[in-house]
Amino acid sequence: MDTLHACPPTPTRPTPPPDASPDDLAAAPGPTAAATPAVDVPALAALLDGRYADVRRLVREGLVEHAGVLEEAETLPYPEYRERVKDIVVGLASTGQTGMGFPEEYGGGADLGASIAAFETLGFGDLSVLVKVGVQFGLFGGAILQLGTRRHHDAYLERLVRGELLGCFAMTETGHGSNVQALGTTATYDPETQEFVVDTGSPEATKDYIGNAARHAELAVVFAQLVVSGEQHGVHAFVVPLREGGRVLPGITIEDDGLKMGLNGVDNGRIRFDGVRVPRTALLNEFADVTEDGRYVSEIENPNRRFFTMLGTLVQGRVCVGAAGLSAAKVALTIAVEYGLRRRQFDAGRGEEAGTEELLLDYGLHQRRLLPLLAETYALHFAQEVLTEQLHDVFSGVTTDEASRRRLESRAAGTKALATWHATRTIQECREACGGAGYLSVNRFAALKADTDVFTTFEGDNHVLLQLVAKGLLTDYASDFEDLDQLGMVRFVAGMAVETVLERTAAHKLLERIRDVLGGDDWDQDAGLFDPEYHLAMFRFREEHTLGGVARRLKRGVDDGLAPGEVFSRVQDHVISAARAHVDRLVLEAFVDKVASLPEGDLRDALNVLCDLYALSTIEADRAWFMEHGRLSSQRSKAISREVGELCRRVRPVAGELVRAFGVPREVLRAPGLLSWGDD
Amino acid sequence: MDTLHACPPTPTRPTPPPDASPDDLAAAPGPTAAATPAVDVPALAALLDGRYADVRRLVREGLVEHAGVLEEAETLPYPEYRERVKDIVVGLASTGQTGMGFPEEYGGGADLGASIAAFETLGFGDLSVLVKVGVQFGLFGGAILQLGTRRHHDAYLERLVRGELLGCFAMTETGHGSNVQALGTTATYDPETQEFVVDTGSPEATKDYIGNAARHAELAVVFAQLVVSGEQHGVHAFVVPLREGGRVLPGITIEDDGLKMGLNGVDNGRIRFDGVRVPRTALLNEFADVTEDGRYVSEIENPNRRFFTMLGTLVQGRVCVGAAGLSAAKVALTIAVEYGLRRRQFDAGRGEEAGTEELLLDYGLHQRRLLPLLAETYALHFAQEVLTEQLHDVFSGVTTDEASRRRLESRAAGTKALATWHATRTIQECREACGGAGYLSVNRFAALKADTDVFTTFEGDNHVLLQLVAKGLLTDYASDFEDLDQLGMVRFVAGMAVETVLERTAAHKLLERIRDVLGGDDWDQDAGLFDPEYHLAMFRFREEHTLGGVARRLKRGVDDGLAPGEVFSRVQDHVISAARAHVDRLVLEAFVDKVASLPEGDLRDALNVLCDLYALSTIEADRAWFMEHGRLSSQRSKAISREVGELCRRVRPVAGELVRAFGVPREVLRAPGLLSWGDD
Repeated sequence: MDTLHACPPTPTRPTPPPDASPDDLAAAPGPTAAATPAVDVPALAALLDGRYADVRRLVREGLVEHAGVLEEAETLPYPEYRERVKDIVVGLASTGQTGMGFPEEYGGGADLGASIAAFETLGFGDLSVLVKVGVQFGLFGGAILQLGTRRHHDAYLERLVRGELLGCFAMTETGHGSNVQALGTTATYDPETQEFVVDTGSPEATKDYIGNAARHAELAVVFAQLVVSGEQHGVHAFVVPLREGGRVLPGITIEDDGLKMGLNGVDNGRIRFDGVRVPRTALLNEFADVTEDGRYVSEIENPNRRFFTMLGTLVQGRVCVGAAGLSAAKVALTIAVEYGLRRRQFDAGRGEEAGTEELLLDYGLHQRRLLPLLAETYALHFAQEVLTEQLHDVFSGVTTDEASRRRLESRAAGTKALATWHATRTIQECREACGGAGYLSVNRFAALKADTDVFTTFEGDNHVLLQLVAKGLLTDYASDFEDLDQLGMVRFVAGMAVETVLERTAAHKLLERIRDVLGGDDWDQDAGLFDPEYHLAMFRFREEHTLGGVARRLKRGVDDGLAPGEVFSRVQDHVISAARAHVDRLVLEAFVDKVASLPEGDLRDALNVLCDLYALSTIEADRAWFMEHGRLSSQRSKAISREVGELCRRVRPVAGELVRAFGVPREVLRAPGLLSWGDD
Repeated sequence: MDTLHACPPTPTRPTPPPDASPDDLAAAPGPTAAATPAVDVPALAALLDGRYADVRRLVREGLVEHAGVLEEAETLPYPEYRERVKDIVVGLASTGQTGMGFPEEYGGGADLGASIAAFETLGFGDLSVLVKVGVQFGLFGGAILQLGTRRHHDAYLERLVRGELLGCFAMTETGHGSNVQALGTTATYDPETQEFVVDTGSPEATKDYIGNAARHAELAVVFAQLVVSGEQHGVHAFVVPLREGGRVLPGITIEDDGLKMGLNGVDNGRIRFDGVRVPRTALLNEFADVTEDGRYVSEIENPNRRFFTMLGTLVQGRVCVGAAGLSAAKVALTIAVEYGLRRRQFDAGRGEEAGTEELLLDYGLHQRRLLPLLAETYALHFAQEVLTEQLHDVFSGVTTDEASRRRLESRAAGTKALATWHATRTIQECREACGGAGYLSVNRFAALKADTDVFTTFEGDNHVLLQLVAKGLLTDYASDFEDLDQLGMVRFVAGMAVETVLERTAAHKLLERIRDVLGGDDWDQDAGLFDPEYHLAMFRFREEHTLGGVARRLKRGVDDGLAPGEVFSRVQDHVISAARAHVDRLVLEAFVDKVASLPEGDLRDALNVLCDLYALSTIEADRAWFMEHGRLSSQRSKAISREVGELCRRVRPVAGELVRAFGVPREVLRAPGLLSWGDD
């Protein structure tokens, strides 16, 4: 399903007259102070679990079974914790829940969507287990599956899926993370022996931060510059044995990365190769090969395009990381909201009962701190669901065109960035909202913070990912442009008229629709604040306008004679803003679509309120931009802030139900004494 | 010195015409693209170290000597790490650096300012050591010194200062953190035996999160509700022995709080008292006493006022926590900026040298991420310096009036909130700016994040502290109002005309001056963007206007018949905004004052640029508010964003010097491989 250009039918909502209330928070209840619809937790939970409810149930059972690892993460010395995590991962493999994405002939479940759902659910538990699963089955297994051919599949997949063959994904180097094309490790073909010789060379080319490397990996998929007959062919992937019977093989040096901020159940390490020889067949040859007689062959002629095609296999990892970040945010919100429903502080002053202290969640500020984050978590959940469907369709061959694949990559990159930043922010706010209690390890925030922190920079640094998104937007994913890096983007735009660039973008088509639906150019001043078409129009306008701004700035910079690097450096923050605006719009569309798809009733009404809160609080957060660009008067801007407060008050009565529907098992929440459930 | 109403002389700066450049980043260099002044690191370091340079040198030597504890924090099991930290703290005590704030007759340095400077510098190192010092000498020692009288001083101070008598500060309870007045522990006077009987009662009244309690404290200062002859007299402090020869005494139960997110070298614990008897003289009786015949006496008649006077002794702890947070931010910035000056990524595309990768700090976005935080760190440093001077003057008796003391308390509360949030944000951004490397424990961010996280909620939750600030502002620190809590604030405002409230506020007097200096009501449209008077005018306008908004909203809420609690809940986010605006203004004034006090030359010019960056990036962050309130046109708002980018480019060439001047010893930075200094 392509929702990029989809126009969802809009649900009917009560629309209050704009600026109905005066410039004052304490005004008498206006027409927006409608009753909050009731929330049926099982029904909402079923909606969130979606088509993979069975898979999620299986994973939840496993989480409960191994819940003790959350405490062991603190009590065991880290070498033992690593072994414990490995054992759990191998145990999970035997239940089938980690192999959902592999072909049935190798013991897999042949359902990529199910595999993402399983991984997402695993994100409620210990995140070292999650990341170890991701390294083994997502990165290592994914590389063998997608970059390799039948000979590699036959050789490795069955044992890999069973967790008997552990491996690692050796891409990042000490000197190069995001700029994978510049990796320094080389794999030189020796036609004499029909082998590749893998060499690290300079210390900067040491493979670094590689999960599973320090202790457990038997094999590595190594990314290295392929050299054949003295000619460089760019980065390719090779299967290189690291250990045999637990011993590191000759020519290979492995160093432990040591303690990290979090995820200490994963054994990250550094690997150096010194003249390590692997057979010609070790090249994962789905997209390129070296023949026996030493010729380089590939069906993809353009080397850059070949490179990005290989990198496209990372898309699955990014979808997974975003989903896991979201799960961690759900755990944090569950604890903080429940705590806010139990903990009292200061005199309530609400009438007769003097001395009764107020529940934290009855404070306006506390609502403001937590409830927009809750709304955004729902929004991202539904956006993640759409993304997973698209991933499933592209990788199962349901959708086959190149543009869909590019859009998927872009969407995965952008959603990963927003979801992981959201997780960092949410976990921090939830921790602070639990005060000193939030600081104790037993209440989970310590591990949540430490473990998820790296999500914003691994599997692609968030800023670099958003640059990818912007690049795709500027070119409408045109195939003749996909191989350009950031400087190529500058040169490309410089070569054409700004209008041409804009007309080619996906965003451009959106704005036409706004005028059709809401009419004229004054739509922003007249539309109701609770009209989803208004929200979408605002998000779309911002997307098109920021993207146009990037194109104009790039062009003007080049016209003014600045070097491309200088131009890019100066426009970079606009590039990031444009990409964010784009992903925000996709997220809102997903939420609006979901609400519209529901039958009329309380559940739909409640999600409607939450969707309004997401939309208006997002507009509020960027209201300066909207005012700067003539799409928000100062009066209307203030009205939006008031309505966000009002929506928080409406969500407040169902906040407990909204977090319970996430379905985080009680056993993994820990937090004795913090929750309003009476079990401690 | 009272800088609250001070009007600093303004330095002359080149003022570009407003909106000189078109709506485009890549415009030809405008008049703002002036050369960046050189920075002499030793001169700037001397300026930052200020009058306590000798003390800071002593502390730095100790940090270098004990730098190994940073690694031991990771490698030792936490019970051993706690012992190690204790040993270091006792060792530091012998050098005199932890006792600067105590009278000379007890072995102290009799210089409170020096004591803050020492503590601040200690914040570069292991933060468990810092917090243990704070607990022992600041909280426990401070309570004995300030709430006790000579009998307590003579009994405890000398051994306490030498680190021979360790104690804890038992205020917070499981059920009550911020709302100290509602504590549940009781101390009932028994006239028969002339003893107090201390009881915990309900589990909610268990003392919790108490540093030094789990292992090392021999004594506790316990805050409890004093009951004499059946009458409650509110919270008072008592000296209660916890252990003798390492054994917990009868009637006392101590539980370990266990592992925490960070600061695991500090032994936090829970304490319960069951009929524990202490002599009548155990009451710390500086402000109130119980006579032998069982009469309660106090020179402060109003119980609320008495309570707040006792709590006023916390001010020193808050000044210290803010300072320490700032030091942690300096460590993070030092590492991230140095890394940005060493690490290259992606083709630079700046002319001839193809293949040369760009330094991270030459990317516009990277500058945008780090340099405004660097500018804010400088601003907060100078604000902290002013605060320390005021603290010193009030506590040394140089300033004796009640209003100055109230202002100090307010300023300490507000600066603590802003400085600790700044630390959390800065450390996070710096970690992300170092990518995967930032995630390794060896590079310090792990400990910095985990250890400082609780700063935002301990020694007063930041939001609660900002509410205190706002309360003080609304009443201009009037003594007849100081004892009102949040609901009292609502009722107070409700009882008078809004104009009366406004005229009484400190902020009101500020706005008059804006008009005098910049003329008329159009000052915001005409003033140069680099005129410090313009910056101050904007900050002051925001302060007065937000405060007025709070008063109006409170009044209207009550007039509309809402319960005081409901009114407060709805206005709470405005209360927080008003307090923030106030503290921002104090911070800017401190920075502008400092720049103005310097002799003309490169150093002053460089700090001028940094001060502009702080001021404009702060305005930029809240530009929506300024537009909403008619003080910024959309054009001028965009111009400010452009100038922030331009100022970042001007700061970039001296960024290394600016962080080196913080004087963080190389040994405590760790981070082998991340720094641009050639020592790894």
